[in-house]
Amino acid sequence: MDVIDIITAKRDGAELTPEQIDWLIARYAEGPAGGIADEQMAALCMAVVWRGMTRAEVARWTGAMLRSGDRLDLAGLDRPTTDKHSTGGVGDKTTLPLTPAVVACGAAVPQLSGRGLGHTGGTLDKLEAIPGWRAELTPGELLRQLREVGGAVCAAGPGLAPADRRLYALRDVTGTVESVPLIAASIMSKKLAEGTGALVLDVKAGSGAFMKDTASARRLARTMVGIGADHGVRTRALITGMDVPLGRAVGNALEVAEALEVLAGGGPDDLVRLVVELGREMLAAAGMPGAKDPADALRDGTAMDAWRAMVAAQGGDPDAPLPRAAERREVPAPATGVLTRLDAYAVGVAARRLGAGRVRKEDPVSAGAGIVLHAKPGDRVRAGRPLLTLHTDDPDRFEPAAEALADAVRVSPEDAPPAPDSEPLPLIIERIT
Amino acid sequence: MDVIDIITAKRDGAELTPEQIDWLIARYAEGPAGGIADEQMAALCMAVVWRGMTRAEVARWTGAMLRSGDRLDLAGLDRPTTDKHSTGGVGDKTTLPLTPAVVACGAAVPQLSGRGLGHTGGTLDKLEAIPGWRAELTPGELLRQLREVGGAVCAAGPGLAPADRRLYALRDVTGTVESVPLIAASIMSKKLAEGTGALVLDVKAGSGAFMKDTASARRLARTMVGIGADHGVRTRALITGMDVPLGRAVGNALEVAEALEVLAGGGPDDLVRLVVELGREMLAAAGMPGAKDPADALRDGTAMDAWRAMVAAQGGDPDAPLPRAAERREVPAPATGVLTRLDAYAVGVAARRLGAGRVRKEDPVSAGAGIVLHAKPGDRVRAGRPLLTLHTDDPDRFEPAAEALADAVRVSPEDAPPAPDSEPLPLIIERIT
Repeated sequence: MDVIDIITAKRDGAELTPEQIDWLIARYAEGPAGGIADEQMAALCMAVVWRGMTRAEVARWTGAMLRSGDRLDLAGLDRPTTDKHSTGGVGDKTTLPLTPAVVACGAAVPQLSGRGLGHTGGTLDKLEAIPGWRAELTPGELLRQLREVGGAVCAAGPGLAPADRRLYALRDVTGTVESVPLIAASIMSKKLAEGTGALVLDVKAGSGAFMKDTASARRLARTMVGIGADHGVRTRALITGMDVPLGRAVGNALEVAEALEVLAGGGPDDLVRLVVELGREMLAAAGMPGAKDPADALRDGTAMDAWRAMVAAQGGDPDAPLPRAAERREVPAPATGVLTRLDAYAVGVAARRLGAGRVRKEDPVSAGAGIVLHAKPGDRVRAGRPLLTLHTDDPDRFEPAAEALADAVRVSPEDAPPAPDSEPLPLIIERIT
Repeated sequence: MDVIDIITAKRDGAELTPEQIDWLIARYAEGPAGGIADEQMAALCMAVVWRGMTRAEVARWTGAMLRSGDRLDLAGLDRPTTDKHSTGGVGDKTTLPLTPAVVACGAAVPQLSGRGLGHTGGTLDKLEAIPGWRAELTPGELLRQLREVGGAVCAAGPGLAPADRRLYALRDVTGTVESVPLIAASIMSKKLAEGTGALVLDVKAGSGAFMKDTASARRLARTMVGIGADHGVRTRALITGMDVPLGRAVGNALEVAEALEVLAGGGPDDLVRLVVELGREMLAAAGMPGAKDPADALRDGTAMDAWRAMVAAQGGDPDAPLPRAAERREVPAPATGVLTRLDAYAVGVAARRLGAGRVRKEDPVSAGAGIVLHAKPGDRVRAGRPLLTLHTDDPDRFEPAAEALADAVRVSPEDAPPAPDSEPLPLIIERIT
């Protein structure tokens, strides 16, 4: 085996053999001792951005990354396991009400999550707004919590798919993040490592998503569903719209508060609908056709009970008041009419600038910072009335946030004909199994 | 400036700006202190293999590499300067008789050369077969030799285009050698650094060349001629055939001996013709329309005089016997008829296996090893009579060399109709100015 042969084969459009992929990933995971230099892996990744990978290649690549570390064994649980992964959006706090709702319907949910980077928030950052809550669980603690409580949202430990960890850091600095097979392999190697039996992917498309258009979201969803199937995990995907923030809250504590509204039987329509649809898919994928409906679990309080147990099991106080930002500022509607645009990407960038997110992995985040939306596209608004409320600990951040929002909003006259090409994508676009 | 922006711009097919290119190459030439990691440059090089470069980009890239080091100043010489560069072939000892022939016609020739790698030999390796000859000259020694003798063939010092040195080493291990703009920029940055006023490129096409077909050789030739023009060096190119070894000798001392035949007024027709044509182009490019003809310089002994002076100036003994390999073996013609194929690539690989070349930069080469051809395509051969003679210091090398030659030779019946698609490429295919 020679790494230059592997690079030139991919560069020239050939399919890599299973032996080449296994050798490459195993050696790369070893670090410098493995003899594959970062510059060689970077050249190969750019060749993959260019040439792509076949279904067989990407399944093997994922499997090799999976085998570079540990895989949790959840076979001893007395319940089916099922999980959800979202490719990330603005205001996407779905995991918070969804996990306890599905637990309340009888499944076990081992949800290994990440932190936010760029304009999208991270589930762990949101939960860390809860006083006392801690993200880190050992594999033993995770297993015990799944057995006793049924669900856990926690950080992926360093032992899971370490090859992906090294490769992702490399791709991040070499302009090779944007490749459907490399993204799919990265996500799926971590999800397969957590040992779930079923998996539902929420692949977002739109301005606030990593995939800007439906076609590329569909490609990513199909690739990941294929990888799951090839590794014996029942996997399906929803393609969902992310032109507009999900719900009405963006920011860590603000989103936890909105998740609590949903768990109490209320909350914004779009968020509730997505939670219920994803929950049904998770139960169906887990092979639980007669299970309780997640909408009922939200209504009857059993989802809230599961939430409280999950939070408490990880040291959180479910009754403690959530942190609030020190400063607030209203952004008024620029005109009277119908709100026709509230751009998710711009809102995400503004929320990050207010302190809710980070640019670099090592940056801290503010628990209280973020944005509350007082209207969503389709709603009537009046000129001068509050459209958004910005929250931050540092008033110097209002100005940069407002700049990010400069083109985020459009209000059209009530009698104006709708411009179909500028309509936001629908909430649920497509289902892929 | 941000290197990731530069990588993603090229990845997405954009043209890099002059400022981006200057910044990138200057930083990369600084080494680790410049802040551009090898993995980032490797990803960019693969993106260039994919997306290519415009004429403006490749000219700027070349200029930036040139400015990373010294450029010799030959303006003080009393003669026009002109040089030749070959992209490399099997049996290509053209530089050896060509440089003194052009010197004998009144030009100064500053020929900075390299060593062989893979299946093609290197000019310095050939000259080092001459007892006492040394390749290294300081810039001051080179200038003095050009003033006193008129010509020098020597190693390019570490001060010339150091960015190219670092970049070439990186491309070599990352599968990014095969890119017309990167090859062109690498060659031209070194040639421009040597300070010549005129340049003739011998761009070879065929099985024994780096460019296998005429179309890609033409692309490379046009790119290099454009770079030369954009830097004020009068540059032209010949595209020449390399399906068959040039001349009848392949190997270091064997090729020096053949060069001496040419300098003595004899030698194989194809080699003599190429030397004369390239010499005329070098003189024309230097703006010397009334100069002596190189064919006359070979005939009247003045080229030989210049050769002896050049060899002596670098410590070589022009009268010393050349090294000979300890062992020889004949390869007989497989049939009686007309030789219709004698594959340059196979002969080059066989010569390397006999000891004439190297796989890695640090490998030693044998002065005496190589192959002598007793016939060229078009010649009649008789079954069982010697077709090739293999020379080596180590008889264990005969077998691997013979294996490389297994499909190298074809003999056709004398009355067989010629198969036009299998004809070797002509010696001189095209002229590009």
